[in-house]
Amino acid sequence: MDVPATINPLAEAGRLEELWSPRVLARVNDQYVKVAKVKGTLTWHTHANEDELFYVLQGRLRLELEGDRAVELNPGEFYVVPKGVRHNPVAEEECLVLLVETVTTEHTGDVVMEKTRSIAEQLGSLSDGRSERPP
Amino acid sequence: MDVPATINPLAEAGRLEELWSPRVLARVNDQYVKVAKVKGTLTWHTHANEDELFYVLQGRLRLELEGDRAVELNPGEFYVVPKGVRHNPVAEEECLVLLVETVTTEHTGDVVMEKTRSIAEQLGSLSDGRSERPP
Repeated sequence: MDVPATINPLAEAGRLEELWSPRVLARVNDQYVKVAKVKGTLTWHTHANEDELFYVLQGRLRLELEGDRAVELNPGEFYVVPKGVRHNPVAEEECLVLLVETVTTEHTGDVVMEKTRSIAEQLGSLSDGRSERPP
Repeated sequence: MDVPATINPLAEAGRLEELWSPRVLARVNDQYVKVAKVKGTLTWHTHANEDELFYVLQGRLRLELEGDRAVELNPGEFYVVPKGVRHNPVAEEECLVLLVETVTTEHTGDVVMEKTRSIAEQLGSLSDGRSERPP
């Protein structure tokens, strides 16, 4: 009897070595489920046509939003940045975060910078995110 | 300064009174993020065109899958049931689960039964899932 593999996003995020480099864990419909290890600040950017969900697995994350607003996320809390809203993720200390975003979403949005990672880089060994993790 | 509300899915799931009655917490692109409190078994069903993500927040969930397979999910683990795969969720004890699925997905798939809840019922006081929870 074949037993499909489950995925533990906290464990997967903890294994990441590079900061601000999202890794695709799975695909659900046209969305990728990703994890990232973050510390410091990414950059102000916008996804014109795509919402982006941030769910904190460990640590704390501040989402600075246009209009002089900010969301403070504690472990177990999530927030959806609506499409078109300029935002900047900031973590004072190391933070592990789960992301849900459209398969075509660039994590630095309209900004290309040193921290920018292509979707292919984020996929790693997964082909399209639908296949299960290799053992 | 307006401070947008964050969402704690474990707390939201814990507040649910009815078993097997998903509640929409948010929308990210064309997907709903839902929570449900489950115990016992739902029913064997299929979503012909939609993947469905199950993420266990508390308790344990077994996803029985066609082909005499099963996935055992512990807290903090998720699994994506691929579209077209017949499945049956089972929880021996009460379990709180987060779901990600397309906004049009019926939670009992091709089966209509007493436990079936319409999308409107799952939305509760949210209009389209994009608005934030009322205070």
